[in-house]
Amino acid sequence: MAGVTIAVDANGADLGPAEVAAGAGIAAARGVRVLLFGPADELGEVAEGVEVVDAPVSIAKAPEPMAAARSTPQASVVQAVEAVADGRADAFVSGGATGAALAAALFRVKRATGIHRPALATPLPVPGHPVTLLDVGANAEVRPEHLVQFAFMGAALARVVLGVERPRVALLSNGEEAQRGTPLVQEAHAALAQRAARAGDALDFVGNVEGDDITAGAADVVVTDGFTGNVALKLMEGVSQTVLGAIRDRAMASPRAKAGGALLRPALRGLRDEIDPEGPGGAYLLGLRRLGVVPHGRFTRYGFSQAILLAARGVSGDIVGRTHQALEAAGALRARPPVDRSAPSPTVH
Amino acid sequence: MAGVTIAVDANGADLGPAEVAAGAGIAAARGVRVLLFGPADELGEVAEGVEVVDAPVSIAKAPEPMAAARSTPQASVVQAVEAVADGRADAFVSGGATGAALAAALFRVKRATGIHRPALATPLPVPGHPVTLLDVGANAEVRPEHLVQFAFMGAALARVVLGVERPRVALLSNGEEAQRGTPLVQEAHAALAQRAARAGDALDFVGNVEGDDITAGAADVVVTDGFTGNVALKLMEGVSQTVLGAIRDRAMASPRAKAGGALLRPALRGLRDEIDPEGPGGAYLLGLRRLGVVPHGRFTRYGFSQAILLAARGVSGDIVGRTHQALEAAGALRARPPVDRSAPSPTVH
Repeated sequence: MAGVTIAVDANGADLGPAEVAAGAGIAAARGVRVLLFGPADELGEVAEGVEVVDAPVSIAKAPEPMAAARSTPQASVVQAVEAVADGRADAFVSGGATGAALAAALFRVKRATGIHRPALATPLPVPGHPVTLLDVGANAEVRPEHLVQFAFMGAALARVVLGVERPRVALLSNGEEAQRGTPLVQEAHAALAQRAARAGDALDFVGNVEGDDITAGAADVVVTDGFTGNVALKLMEGVSQTVLGAIRDRAMASPRAKAGGALLRPALRGLRDEIDPEGPGGAYLLGLRRLGVVPHGRFTRYGFSQAILLAARGVSGDIVGRTHQALEAAGALRARPPVDRSAPSPTVH
Repeated sequence: MAGVTIAVDANGADLGPAEVAAGAGIAAARGVRVLLFGPADELGEVAEGVEVVDAPVSIAKAPEPMAAARSTPQASVVQAVEAVADGRADAFVSGGATGAALAAALFRVKRATGIHRPALATPLPVPGHPVTLLDVGANAEVRPEHLVQFAFMGAALARVVLGVERPRVALLSNGEEAQRGTPLVQEAHAALAQRAARAGDALDFVGNVEGDDITAGAADVVVTDGFTGNVALKLMEGVSQTVLGAIRDRAMASPRAKAGGALLRPALRGLRDEIDPEGPGGAYLLGLRRLGVVPHGRFTRYGFSQAILLAARGVSGDIVGRTHQALEAAGALRARPPVDRSAPSPTVH
């Protein structure tokens, strides 16, 4: 990852800009160059390899992110995205405000040709079964053709990042039968089945999966709208942390349990890391001309460092180029480019 | 629960009618009388307290449950619901096919006066925080006023079943701010905020919650559409079972870990029961003139016995009557009854 520069927005994190700066320092120590946009006087001491650009203005909490991104060129997230657009950096990482990052990216980096909507794709912290879930929050509302394209985007990502040759792709639904789900899912199911049959090795459409199939390894890629995906991602994190917490509590409940917990701890250490929500570093923002990564606003410095490293690995692996090629090869790009590719997406928020 | 009779449909369970019959036997041993509708020659030996009505016809897999319920009076689920409608039983339990049970119930038991749509409400297997989630699958698509009524239905249930005085009710969304979510959630948010302000102690509307807030105890009742709720419920089960399974695997990985696991096991036994998806017994089908319980089709006999006991407790506690009174007191019933209350709900499937 030598020679890769990541533009990072320090605003928007729940723990404040200094936590993001600390994460940038950890990533810089791993060889990534970081351009850090945020309030210089709130970033604390900054590590070598991190270059600060004073950008105190934040639109992370703006109720209308698209309007804010357009009218606030000095905002840290807009400047970070701008650095990617004009080639000073290779990819951007937001401080955690999805809406602001997506708005700034749509406005300054633009969608890639033939892409309906960008989507947030995240590797899920499932022990033993790497699963890619998308969309986890870029589009609260989608149309069937968006879900179809997300399926191909996710498959391309699984191929490029995880080396899965013919990714098994599923639609998330409330039943496995093709006629289950909302009209959106039903239509997407029919369209995707038709497209997948002609797409050769690009993907293997395995139909609908239910919530519990996600963790059972029934598919390599699970496709859903950004509302359901966001609820699902956060719920997974909540449940795994709650179960681990309950086990920890019970392992303190008696001397016998304490002794057992102490003996078991080394064996469980790897598992805790495997299901740590901060481990994956957040979600890739796919479908733009350059790469973005959106971590959770609640991440600590560890999560932000992972987000920056995720972005750097994505640049090294040319995720944007290879995903786009894969979409093109599968015939999954839309035929005509939109009239105005910088038009705001109505569901960004 | 003496004197309570539950009508049980033995068809539709993944493990077959005999598994449901075995569950009925367990419940009968706890004092519940069971009328069991299913294929008599596939039920195995039936315990005392269980009366079999031979009903081999199943519509559990019918692609159009509403049409099947109307045209197949001999179907086991229709007969079970009929037994409740004509007073031979106090509540019904389905063998696991939600669509067929809902269709039969709408057709034979009918909606209660002033109810837009029945909803499936389930106590979630969250350690330490009893949370009621609805709808978990009766309505894949809803309108804002349905979610508002679900909020009051869930609050009434939490009050009656869990004794929560002023239940904290939340809408499930992809962000906590009032403007987050789909247009459906945004409209429901505004409408519920207005209604809750006038509803006194019926409920305390705490706004939107995200996926991970469900397990964090942020609300006593979480309201969502049946698509999202079904995905969420199954995902929770999948994640908790996956985490427990991963811990079990790791506790077998070395002699040291094995010794630790053995010492810890008794302390974890209660937890395993607490997060067992079969523990709650399934979901209450609320909003009908009589009570129904819908377990998962994948349950074992233990889960079906829990479902029957859940139904029996619901009858003893007069959940239908008390929930309806609570909705009436809160002004949450719709003003005029529908023209034809037996009209099929278009989203039942």
